[in-house]
Amino acid sequence: MNLRMKWLRNQLLPLKLDGMIVSNPINIKYLTGLDEEGYLIVGPKENIFVTDSRYIESVNRKLTIDDEIIAYNSKELDKYDYEGIFMSYDNVGFEEKYVTYEQYKKYLQMFQVSMSETDGLIENQRIVKDEEEIEYIKKACEITDNAFEYILDYLQEGVTEKEVAFELEKYMVLNDADGIAFDLIVAFGENTSMPHAVPTDRRLRTGDIIQFDIGCKFNGYCSDFSRVVFTAEPTEEQKQVYNFLIEEQKRLSIAFKDGANIKAIIKDRESEYKLKNFALLHAFGHGVGLDIHEQPFLNSKVDNYAKENSVIAIEPGVYFPGKYGMRIEDTYKVEKIGTTQLTKYKKDYIVIKL
Amino acid sequence: MNLRMKWLRNQLLPLKLDGMIVSNPINIKYLTGLDEEGYLIVGPKENIFVTDSRYIESVNRKLTIDDEIIAYNSKELDKYDYEGIFMSYDNVGFEEKYVTYEQYKKYLQMFQVSMSETDGLIENQRIVKDEEEIEYIKKACEITDNAFEYILDYLQEGVTEKEVAFELEKYMVLNDADGIAFDLIVAFGENTSMPHAVPTDRRLRTGDIIQFDIGCKFNGYCSDFSRVVFTAEPTEEQKQVYNFLIEEQKRLSIAFKDGANIKAIIKDRESEYKLKNFALLHAFGHGVGLDIHEQPFLNSKVDNYAKENSVIAIEPGVYFPGKYGMRIEDTYKVEKIGTTQLTKYKKDYIVIKL
Repeated sequence: MNLRMKWLRNQLLPLKLDGMIVSNPINIKYLTGLDEEGYLIVGPKENIFVTDSRYIESVNRKLTIDDEIIAYNSKELDKYDYEGIFMSYDNVGFEEKYVTYEQYKKYLQMFQVSMSETDGLIENQRIVKDEEEIEYIKKACEITDNAFEYILDYLQEGVTEKEVAFELEKYMVLNDADGIAFDLIVAFGENTSMPHAVPTDRRLRTGDIIQFDIGCKFNGYCSDFSRVVFTAEPTEEQKQVYNFLIEEQKRLSIAFKDGANIKAIIKDRESEYKLKNFALLHAFGHGVGLDIHEQPFLNSKVDNYAKENSVIAIEPGVYFPGKYGMRIEDTYKVEKIGTTQLTKYKKDYIVIKL
Repeated sequence: MNLRMKWLRNQLLPLKLDGMIVSNPINIKYLTGLDEEGYLIVGPKENIFVTDSRYIESVNRKLTIDDEIIAYNSKELDKYDYEGIFMSYDNVGFEEKYVTYEQYKKYLQMFQVSMSETDGLIENQRIVKDEEEIEYIKKACEITDNAFEYILDYLQEGVTEKEVAFELEKYMVLNDADGIAFDLIVAFGENTSMPHAVPTDRRLRTGDIIQFDIGCKFNGYCSDFSRVVFTAEPTEEQKQVYNFLIEEQKRLSIAFKDGANIKAIIKDRESEYKLKNFALLHAFGHGVGLDIHEQPFLNSKVDNYAKENSVIAIEPGVYFPGKYGMRIEDTYKVEKIGTTQLTKYKKDYIVIKL
């Protein structure tokens, strides 16, 4: 059995759980490496992965005897099999952040055990990355940097946001990425004022600013990166906003060291935004790993402390509704002191001629 | 207010609901056209879309006075605002198939109303498509047919499954698709034995059979299509399996007319599979619309009747674990008598020379 599965089994007793049902596919991948549909039952007697006939062959090709996981086709399990599995279980944990209300009721009925919330047990464990995970994230960051460098050459008068987004995806996939980490954002001109702009057929014109927010996956692990590109000399106002973002990001990247109080750091930066009269349209950042948005979330709502070897995206942004917006973002690894930047593209003004 | 919103409001009273919280983004898109994150509160007094600061500008750009929907930034709503909204509500419907157990508990606490399951109310309504929806699906089918024709020319010795899948996606996106409707399946040789094969770096060799399962979206609406391609003259066994699938699909496409008993039809075909000793690794098909898999599901588990103007994918498949598999699939519109095929690529043996 691998270390992560052993870790989970060791959590159960102190939590007074006889077992746990893992339903979130990202958590299943984290624990077992499997990305087939199904759910995992972790218990003192055995570990069971319940999948269906579409996936059973592929699951069985991947699992080895060392995994100590038995795969079943759900069709072949009846009421009595579940009774057998859960016979010695009184209280089983489930993932209330992932399981739907309907599924919860089905579990109750099928398994005939009492079910307890687990409050992000596995998600919390995923915050601190091991060496292998860091290597995968670094590789995703490297592909993203290279894709951005590639796309700067591709940009020309008249290309659409959609075409540019697609060209970025193509570069990523043909250069070892599993795929994109989220729907890539490429926004021109006035569309940059929306943090979650969806690429349209809007064509690029000289004078536009361009917002990129891009990332890919490598072996399941994500990168996250944003840059602004100018197609004309930036105005004084634009320069001021841009410089402000660079300073903000730098300040945050220094503040986020092992043990730092996230709530306090973010509260402080929120005050700065208020002073400058800038609207806060999104958080200052988030953890990055198997999920593109995972813990820790860089907001001032909950008490939370930065941890060494966690990976976070830091992304201050400033937006003027209907006019334009800018956001700078890099993926960082949190260290004992400060952070190491994993996406590395430079942050000088990027001015291109179409 | 549009017809779909009016329809939903008319459902509430007979269901003894004072309002409904719509959380499933596909249902929100169906009702309002919005694809921003958030949830919709439909009530007798007003319709409210609660989103957040990332999306508020984009939502407000889309909504007009005719929509009769008020958009709020969730940050600007406090306990007292929710009290105001839900003051005259006793019992509110929610989507138990979509809402997580945690979210359900949050809704209860925030809204201070009693919440009732709605048992797929909107999903059921989505089964029968209107003319506009059919047009969008037809367009998605046409793009898919063309993408398949295009890719046959692209195939050559040594290309990888991943490269072919990506080339298909590129063709779709550059030819008016919003994007792919699901992770495209391109499987070579022995990989075809897994119905949900994920494209790998496996290279194409003469003699391989190739399984395609592809589809795209147009204005949010999906297409679904599968074909087998031979790179050498098919063996007698392969021909028999292929012909069996063509016959199966034809039989089903005739059986699925308005009012047909889905359970009975599928039970009958399952017996045929058993007689032939073929494993049933997946259902015979499913509804297609804003979701790639939606109602009706073509299985023998629940009582269900086909409806005119619903759209379904019919996809019989036969698999020999570790060896190979084949699946033929087209998207059909259900008519008063029989069906109309919407993906149109021919079904003769497709034999290509690499």
